[in-house]
Amino acid sequence: MQNPKEIAVVGAGLVGSLLAIYLKRAGHSVHVFDRSPDIRKIQFSGRSINLAMSNRGWKALKNIGIAEEIRKIGLPMDKRAIHMMDQSLNFQKYGKDGESIYSLSRGVLNRKMIDLAEKEGVEFFFEHKVWDVALSEAILKIGEDEHGAWEERKYDMIFGSDGAFSRVRHRMQRQSMFNYSQEFLEIGYKELNIPANEDGTHKLDNSSLHIWPRGNFMLIALPNLDGSFTCTLFMPFKGENSFEQLDTKEKLVNFFAKYFPSTDEVIPNLVEDFFKNPKSYLVTMKCFPWTHNDKVALIGDACHAIVPFYGHGMNAGFEDITILNELMAKYGDDWQSIFTEYENSRKPNADAIAELSYRNFVEMSTKTADANFMLQKKIEKWFSEKHPDKWIPLYSRVTFSHQPYSEALAVGDRQDAIMKEILAIESIEEIWETEPVEQRILQLLSE
Amino acid sequence: MQNPKEIAVVGAGLVGSLLAIYLKRAGHSVHVFDRSPDIRKIQFSGRSINLAMSNRGWKALKNIGIAEEIRKIGLPMDKRAIHMMDQSLNFQKYGKDGESIYSLSRGVLNRKMIDLAEKEGVEFFFEHKVWDVALSEAILKIGEDEHGAWEERKYDMIFGSDGAFSRVRHRMQRQSMFNYSQEFLEIGYKELNIPANEDGTHKLDNSSLHIWPRGNFMLIALPNLDGSFTCTLFMPFKGENSFEQLDTKEKLVNFFAKYFPSTDEVIPNLVEDFFKNPKSYLVTMKCFPWTHNDKVALIGDACHAIVPFYGHGMNAGFEDITILNELMAKYGDDWQSIFTEYENSRKPNADAIAELSYRNFVEMSTKTADANFMLQKKIEKWFSEKHPDKWIPLYSRVTFSHQPYSEALAVGDRQDAIMKEILAIESIEEIWETEPVEQRILQLLSE
Repeated sequence: MQNPKEIAVVGAGLVGSLLAIYLKRAGHSVHVFDRSPDIRKIQFSGRSINLAMSNRGWKALKNIGIAEEIRKIGLPMDKRAIHMMDQSLNFQKYGKDGESIYSLSRGVLNRKMIDLAEKEGVEFFFEHKVWDVALSEAILKIGEDEHGAWEERKYDMIFGSDGAFSRVRHRMQRQSMFNYSQEFLEIGYKELNIPANEDGTHKLDNSSLHIWPRGNFMLIALPNLDGSFTCTLFMPFKGENSFEQLDTKEKLVNFFAKYFPSTDEVIPNLVEDFFKNPKSYLVTMKCFPWTHNDKVALIGDACHAIVPFYGHGMNAGFEDITILNELMAKYGDDWQSIFTEYENSRKPNADAIAELSYRNFVEMSTKTADANFMLQKKIEKWFSEKHPDKWIPLYSRVTFSHQPYSEALAVGDRQDAIMKEILAIESIEEIWETEPVEQRILQLLSE
Repeated sequence: MQNPKEIAVVGAGLVGSLLAIYLKRAGHSVHVFDRSPDIRKIQFSGRSINLAMSNRGWKALKNIGIAEEIRKIGLPMDKRAIHMMDQSLNFQKYGKDGESIYSLSRGVLNRKMIDLAEKEGVEFFFEHKVWDVALSEAILKIGEDEHGAWEERKYDMIFGSDGAFSRVRHRMQRQSMFNYSQEFLEIGYKELNIPANEDGTHKLDNSSLHIWPRGNFMLIALPNLDGSFTCTLFMPFKGENSFEQLDTKEKLVNFFAKYFPSTDEVIPNLVEDFFKNPKSYLVTMKCFPWTHNDKVALIGDACHAIVPFYGHGMNAGFEDITILNELMAKYGDDWQSIFTEYENSRKPNADAIAELSYRNFVEMSTKTADANFMLQKKIEKWFSEKHPDKWIPLYSRVTFSHQPYSEALAVGDRQDAIMKEILAIESIEEIWETEPVEQRILQLLSE
């Protein structure tokens, strides 16, 4: 047990609420500030992508005994359902039998997490806008307007879990020796919706993550408990097949009829939703350091915002908490050591999942419809079942293991190079399930 | 001639003052704001590195007829003077006979530029702190404190020449789709001084840029008109041979005696200056876009701050002005086209000079003392004199030509690859000045 501290957490999102529970359990007094109204009392905005909770996320929940509660509001997805241009459907299993990721609505999960945190005794202050922080003194500066009157609140320690546009980080960024980058994709997204059938059942298979891969754009759909799917259309802002082009009802309808004909019946409110819901941006944000003395630490998107194509933004943030918690056990009240090891151990892993997520757009939007890629997946599955100690596919390392992301990335690159050689073997599509291919992979692995 | 506009320039540094002259000459009303007191009325701070004006800088000055005036306050340097560890001195010419870069004191130059701008009718507002900008309306927000009362001033157009920590960019950075990065080196610098002899002459050769290359740290010295040299010590903040280590007078004196024995007599105030002058940081800052509609444009360090090892920070900023001026002639009052072509054409060149500058630390601090590097320089000089149409060394492309930086970088990389092959030839140090070597280079060039 640590000596109790007065701790402020800035940001009542998923990472902020879970961190608050951990800190409260460790004996601290915890205040959580958020600039928005209580999400439990408002309609959740139409600019979200459903979450895919995987093993890293579950571990952080299990560790404080709330995993089962959360599992009730999620739906397991054990495969991708690929909707090809020729209208055929191709299923691609994510892992081994029994391995799934869980579809969760961000709004539903966030409300639940705040409920759980309040039950633990965490205090929430909604509609409190933190504009600035005195880093060395751990003072929050709160007010209605950025350039209006501010109230100051002093704490022993502050955590910034205030997301990609973190104000806590904003202050750190103005220190010397603070490295920082923000890079926007030329691709944005828009939320659409597949409602439930009248009897409350799902219109599409509800244990799949659905993808309509179309090259430089794609549509995805993740199931919700209420029978609906949250859909997300990813496409470039400008150029061919872009948001800019779809500026009339007619163009939009023709576009969907051409590229996503199977959605005609299942997305009834296409036109209304498309023109009502905002276009959202996708940014990769990196920075270092993540902490200031033993007073302030960034966590989650506030220090490593990533693009959503691996479904690991929340999972990586929850893993930050797992690691922080281990370091609290290791170092007790020595917060300087906790923070130093936290940022040094997490930084390479945050960079790795950023890279993996960036690359995964191409995998989802293009490769999932590619015959070579499907063959590679089959060979990897076949070989890893024969040699589970020698081969775990990259997706499984990232999603179903707790191997540090940076290691998963390095091993994945090596495995990919091997698969490139294997796919180059003549008539590989006919002979892949044979002894010589197996031997060749073993040989390449031992080199 | 363009239609006259009311234009604000934020930042009265070198780029801001020169830009103001150009805009005034084009018929606009120009107000320049700077947060600091008038540099002409204060002692210039001890945290500067002397400037090295090269052809790109001169071109921008010549174009409005002030080059000769400025040349009077500079000193030509036609070579590097390398102070080796064994106390020997090695001279390395920068270019062909008659090609020099010019050493200029930043303070002296900046005062002169402001004088010249005032003579043109530019109005300066010193001690006016710009904290924020309304981008779409071109309104400056000025006040004593960031979080105090602000006065608003509306213009037709605003230029942000307010340096690496630009407040104008700071506002742009908070827009979606604004890419940004700041990256600090682990190496910092400190200004030292070699005073003039009693008779006003220089203590070291005054037509050289002096370098004491010592691997991960180095000392440099650039001559001033008054007989003194401005010295800069570059070294890591931490670790072996770092600022952190030199924390007592004794350690400092021993360190200089060991690594820079030849400076013993010429830097009399070493101890006082070292502990009085601040440590400064080195940052590479990149961003995009550089403009907002036809209202706001960044220029110079505000959109491409680089490390100083190629001596091109000011030169690149002045070249921005040259290009902007060409576009003003091309597009007249169509400022949207001026700004769009300005940012698109300059961005790759800004990235290239950032890369070249970053790499040049290793060239200055390590390679200049390396036998292989010196041989490469000799071979390049020999070959380029024989084939001036086929080979211009990278340094000359960057410094004595107006070739876009991005092209210079690309050609330089190719030339470097060729030189690598040439240096690998057996006994090259004995046979470099021979026909077979010449033929081999010609062959590699034609591949």
